[in-house]
Amino acid sequence: MWRRMLSVTIAGERWLRRRNCLPSGIRVLCTLKTDHAYRSLKSPSLVSLDIPDIWDSSIVCSDFHSFQASFNRNMGRRIDGLLVAKEIRFGIATEVSRMKASIGEVPGLAVILVGQRRDSQVYVRNKIAACEEVGIKFVLTELPDNCTEDEILNALTGFNKDSSIHGILVQLPLPRHLDEGRILDAIRLEKDVDGVHPLNMGNLAMHGREPLFIPCTPKGCVELLLRSDVEIMGKRAVVIGRSNIVGLPASLLLQRYHATVSIVHPFTKNPENIAREADILVAAAGVPNVVRGSWIKPGAIVIDVGTNPIEDPSCENGYRLIGDVCYEEAVKVASAVTPVPGGVGPMTVAMLLFNTLESARRALSFI
Amino acid sequence: MWRRMLSVTIAGERWLRRRNCLPSGIRVLCTLKTDHAYRSLKSPSLVSLDIPDIWDSSIVCSDFHSFQASFNRNMGRRIDGLLVAKEIRFGIATEVSRMKASIGEVPGLAVILVGQRRDSQVYVRNKIAACEEVGIKFVLTELPDNCTEDEILNALTGFNKDSSIHGILVQLPLPRHLDEGRILDAIRLEKDVDGVHPLNMGNLAMHGREPLFIPCTPKGCVELLLRSDVEIMGKRAVVIGRSNIVGLPASLLLQRYHATVSIVHPFTKNPENIAREADILVAAAGVPNVVRGSWIKPGAIVIDVGTNPIEDPSCENGYRLIGDVCYEEAVKVASAVTPVPGGVGPMTVAMLLFNTLESARRALSFI
Repeated sequence: MWRRMLSVTIAGERWLRRRNCLPSGIRVLCTLKTDHAYRSLKSPSLVSLDIPDIWDSSIVCSDFHSFQASFNRNMGRRIDGLLVAKEIRFGIATEVSRMKASIGEVPGLAVILVGQRRDSQVYVRNKIAACEEVGIKFVLTELPDNCTEDEILNALTGFNKDSSIHGILVQLPLPRHLDEGRILDAIRLEKDVDGVHPLNMGNLAMHGREPLFIPCTPKGCVELLLRSDVEIMGKRAVVIGRSNIVGLPASLLLQRYHATVSIVHPFTKNPENIAREADILVAAAGVPNVVRGSWIKPGAIVIDVGTNPIEDPSCENGYRLIGDVCYEEAVKVASAVTPVPGGVGPMTVAMLLFNTLESARRALSFI
Repeated sequence: MWRRMLSVTIAGERWLRRRNCLPSGIRVLCTLKTDHAYRSLKSPSLVSLDIPDIWDSSIVCSDFHSFQASFNRNMGRRIDGLLVAKEIRFGIATEVSRMKASIGEVPGLAVILVGQRRDSQVYVRNKIAACEEVGIKFVLTELPDNCTEDEILNALTGFNKDSSIHGILVQLPLPRHLDEGRILDAIRLEKDVDGVHPLNMGNLAMHGREPLFIPCTPKGCVELLLRSDVEIMGKRAVVIGRSNIVGLPASLLLQRYHATVSIVHPFTKNPENIAREADILVAAAGVPNVVRGSWIKPGAIVIDVGTNPIEDPSCENGYRLIGDVCYEEAVKVASAVTPVPGGVGPMTVAMLLFNTLESARRALSFI
């Protein structure tokens, strides 16, 4: 982490110095927080947008080195999200133990699950198992498909007040008769570990602001990039999809790391041409195998957020998950690709644990 | 306006129908509000993101017609922001008169100006003149350069409570010793006519959410696009700059209109190459003449948000304003360009009046 932090700091400083914005001898310190919890992550708790956006005529002829060459050194690498998530969970478990030993408390996560969706049930089971592994208390409220908004809001009110609960998550999607916005707005901001509140999103987007939580999936994507030794600053990043939970915050977070971001959505003409511009391609369309080899710039890093269930009688559950990226084609073109399953999925869960731990640390003033 | 609304509606419907998402005979109505105030605008009060983001394999081979041909019909047109803003102000004046005649009230705008910056003083003078023209009450609080945050917060508290004030604006930039975020956060959300509160920004960014106010400059840019008969949906839009007040909300708003947006900033490598991909180029870097003819795709629409004062002894004030775009080069390549001055500037003021009127209409339940 220190190497990464140092490199970001030096890059920012070099950038400012090149533009004569700094007297010699003065160092720039980006707002990169360090704390115990972050020992388990490569990504800093927050990357500041506060390096000043100073433009000058030299922006026309950039002197960034070509990173393409470095991308090409290890073609077709599989980014092992399972392994990285395991390492992070180990770090979180250590922190939770330290918290318990020091102050006799552990972080608490509450999940509200509405209905019988098979995929949602699987995701919630994974979260329960992960919490048990690291020592985070887990509370599950299950409500039937036809429950009312008020029933959910009542459950939320209870969790909002419960001082042993530091994170609250409503498993999405909700049945159609429920007002998702109204329900998510009812989560207390300090416990919104999924980071889906618009105030949190606005703070993620804006200069000079800090979100309380970075949404889990985008945070997991960035962690994988950093662990793959990708310097995000200055790269072309293309995010396919603009959902509130993945595409939008991923684009905002990558921009916070100073990538040049383009957002592709269903109204985009010729999306493959835009995807092919990407040094970093994040696929979050929710369409199985939509990103083919021809969509990928040689040497790019591909992060596949898709988790699309397709029927497969040979599997135990009668279905299996595939991504938005045609993996077999992608590994022949990209420098590195996340698989599905075993890529972003476990990272999302790890980041949920991480955000819950962070929330508990804030609430309990545990450093 | 109706033609525009109809065309958006039909486009959305056609898109859904092409993907077999609609039974025949069913029409789609986008969330395009109509009200009296919007008689003076081409842009709807809100463009919903609620057309479902449904992806299918046909996204690879888009069947959108080529708009490039239509762009090329009128090369080098000057978009007259002064004229458009005048029309809009006329519409607002009519509405304000109707409000006064109906309920005996007028909208009220309060501005806080800190320090002696010459450009800020000019902008505030323009706002005062515009308010006087349309009949909006204007209150100005001037504070010295070395004032404290508490002095500003006290003034804000007064305006927040004052029921005759429907919009509050703190003229930016503030002197460096003041915490801009803390000050802007103190503006009551219902009176944040500049739309700079992070909750408003989050609501602008997210599906299924509605901001109370669309920030004035981006709203002015979109209004100019619509009045130039540009269909934004499906276009490549490049926004140069990512400030809280222009670049960020412009990128979010254009995406709300279903443009494919890329954001260029000082860390972007070879920004001219990305700018040249744009059908719609919004320049908000704050660098005089940074966008040259070679940055512009032939036939593109160029919106120049830059207002850079440069010394000019031949001018009355000793300086004149120039844009971020080299106008003389741009008009030879683009299909239409906004000049500086006389382009986006007057539109920003018109949209501030518009947002203040909207706020008063909400507060007074005046339809």
